[in-house]
Amino acid sequence: MTHYAAIKVTEAPDHLVIRFDRPDNDNAIDSVFLTELNRALDRSLSVPEHRMVVLTGSAEVFCTGMDFSSGDPGADPRDAALEGGRRYADLLFRLTTIPRMVVSVVEGAVLGGGVGLVAASDLVCATPDSRYSLPEALWGLLPCTVLPYLTRKVGFQAAHAMTLTTLPVSGQRAHHIGLVDELDPDVAGCLRRLRIRVRRINPSTVAAAKEYSNRLSPISSQVRQAAVDRFVELMADGSVRERIEAFARDGVPPWESR
Amino acid sequence: MTHYAAIKVTEAPDHLVIRFDRPDNDNAIDSVFLTELNRALDRSLSVPEHRMVVLTGSAEVFCTGMDFSSGDPGADPRDAALEGGRRYADLLFRLTTIPRMVVSVVEGAVLGGGVGLVAASDLVCATPDSRYSLPEALWGLLPCTVLPYLTRKVGFQAAHAMTLTTLPVSGQRAHHIGLVDELDPDVAGCLRRLRIRVRRINPSTVAAAKEYSNRLSPISSQVRQAAVDRFVELMADGSVRERIEAFARDGVPPWESR
Amino acid sequence: MTHYAAIKVTEAPDHLVIRFDRPDNDNAIDSVFLTELNRALDRSLSVPEHRMVVLTGSAEVFCTGMDFSSGDPGADPRDAALEGGRRYADLLFRLTTIPRMVVSVVEGAVLGGGVGLVAASDLVCATPDSRYSLPEALWGLLPCTVLPYLTRKVGFQAAHAMTLTTLPVSGQRAHHIGLVDELDPDVAGCLRRLRIRVRRINPSTVAAAKEYSNRLSPISSQVRQAAVDRFVELMADGSVRERIEAFARDGVPPWESR
Repeated sequence: MTHYAAIKVTEAPDHLVIRFDRPDNDNAIDSVFLTELNRALDRSLSVPEHRMVVLTGSAEVFCTGMDFSSGDPGADPRDAALEGGRRYADLLFRLTTIPRMVVSVVEGAVLGGGVGLVAASDLVCATPDSRYSLPEALWGLLPCTVLPYLTRKVGFQAAHAMTLTTLPVSGQRAHHIGLVDELDPDVAGCLRRLRIRVRRINPSTVAAAKEYSNRLSPISSQVRQAAVDRFVELMADGSVRERIEAFARDGVPPWESR
Repeated sequence: MTHYAAIKVTEAPDHLVIRFDRPDNDNAIDSVFLTELNRALDRSLSVPEHRMVVLTGSAEVFCTGMDFSSGDPGADPRDAALEGGRRYADLLFRLTTIPRMVVSVVEGAVLGGGVGLVAASDLVCATPDSRYSLPEALWGLLPCTVLPYLTRKVGFQAAHAMTLTTLPVSGQRAHHIGLVDELDPDVAGCLRRLRIRVRRINPSTVAAAKEYSNRLSPISSQVRQAAVDRFVELMADGSVRERIEAFARDGVPPWESR
Repeated sequence: MTHYAAIKVTEAPDHLVIRFDRPDNDNAIDSVFLTELNRALDRSLSVPEHRMVVLTGSAEVFCTGMDFSSGDPGADPRDAALEGGRRYADLLFRLTTIPRMVVSVVEGAVLGGGVGLVAASDLVCATPDSRYSLPEALWGLLPCTVLPYLTRKVGFQAAHAMTLTTLPVSGQRAHHIGLVDELDPDVAGCLRRLRIRVRRINPSTVAAAKEYSNRLSPISSQVRQAAVDRFVELMADGSVRERIEAFARDGVPPWESR
């Protein structure tokens, strides 16, 4: 039995549930989170009967994106940005290509990189009071790696508007634009219905369907690389660094300051 | 006067109506159906005043896709899959490029390849109780040729979700995602309004509009060829063949067995 | 203080408002309109504190597209079409690349080229009784330059259907398909909320966001050039010229004649 610190993993005969579990950090994404999420995906791959991997958070927060409060203070910030950016980009790509139906079950808040996890999922069940936002621009950043996946899912305009306005999108609106597939206050029931259907589909067919969809609407390696490069560039900007350091020091995000 | 077996054709001065008419086979697509549909399209092209071609089915069923109960039992299955797949792919492409406004008027069930006919239409009028599904994955197949057209019409996610879940989409939802342009219990009235408008547009302008839209959002010959190749590969799979043979023998589709 | 004839320009510390003001010509786009719009954009660029440019019209009409009643009667029509088409295409591209958040605030009617202004905006606030149509096909024309931007914003099908049917789309439907971001009878309030949010985002971040979105979903120079070329070709068509001349003479558009 593997031990996890940032997530909780539950197994069933035909699927695996990954619950984000960093209650003191609003389920933000740090290095341990990324390592453990990948380890849980490896685990599901080792069970041939698995068809589905479920990503979920708490009732209040699904995932709030990159953890700006973490990180080794002694590390070179550019190296840290590159390392974190690359690993996050690899995770999103892995979710879209792994031969499992990846289902995000969303309650509460989803921010920044958390929106990327949702956008890279095959299917999304969410409650009407879930909400989604890209606050990156308030830091002087952009959701570089999220955008290719988000744009593929909701189209150019909805992704562009979320980026530029940083305004939260309601569960209702997220369903409307296609970020959420099933809007249901009872996400457990929604997941149950999905499992019944999925049981009739072979894992090899799930793999084939994902492979074919990705061939028709690819997120190319150039796009993925350019996203990481642009993110590292922006993270090196002086005013961005200042805001991140102020936040790490005071715990006040840019939208609450001034 | 041409005689048809799988469709009924009615002509008006400015348009032609093709009604799918295989009541004993749920308007499934077989070789005769494909031949006759093309012949009816030829007929419309021979009338310069024609601006519109209407595709429709019965009140219960529009079209249920490929007819797995038909086919020459002596034929090589791979050859048959290639022949059927190629002719179906050519038909969808022809619908998107023929210099006529192709309007699907949909009531009842639309399955598999039938969804492709709808997706390749220029405009779709449908009743709220029409419903759309891609059951291919339950056979171990994929809607290879349907997906480029469906994705162009409804975006990546709605097409991907229909493929993976195989769950039916209601008329309401189909309108929401853009598969249906006009949702109206009175499809005849909907078609009448469209005809009045279309009468003011020259056939040459219809042709130019379709040509220009296809140039902006092409379904390339590579994509179309890859779709047929992938379909033929999947049809050659042993477990797929077994399910199709069981269905041809017992008449029980995979979602009703087990 | 610059003087304008076709628009009214108001400045605020952080943004500039461009109100289309050709009440006798339904805010149609002519040569003066294009020159002045560009001059107003230049003005905003000269103020480093500006983050936002607002495009708006009157309560009855936002913009009705190309002014077919204007033009030098002595000019070669092909040259005039090329000159007008090119300048309009350059304006749309400029709106999508200028380092300002371009917000269209829409009331009333939007036709043809006016739809392009809306589609090339970063964000759109509109009233429920705003309405949008592409009447080009009734002239025997196509919205060549509008379509790449409209398709990027609303997807293939909604743009294709507007082109082919020429039917108006309501504010409600425009919001549904993504042409309108915020539907609100109180567009002033909508704009006020947006300004508060935008004040927290650096102009350089607005520029970076637009640059990144355009890189992911480019409107290439080939596409823009092909659009102008196709438009000029169509404008040279004899039956198109006849309809435009009849309109310039009698003031009756093709959809009211016959």
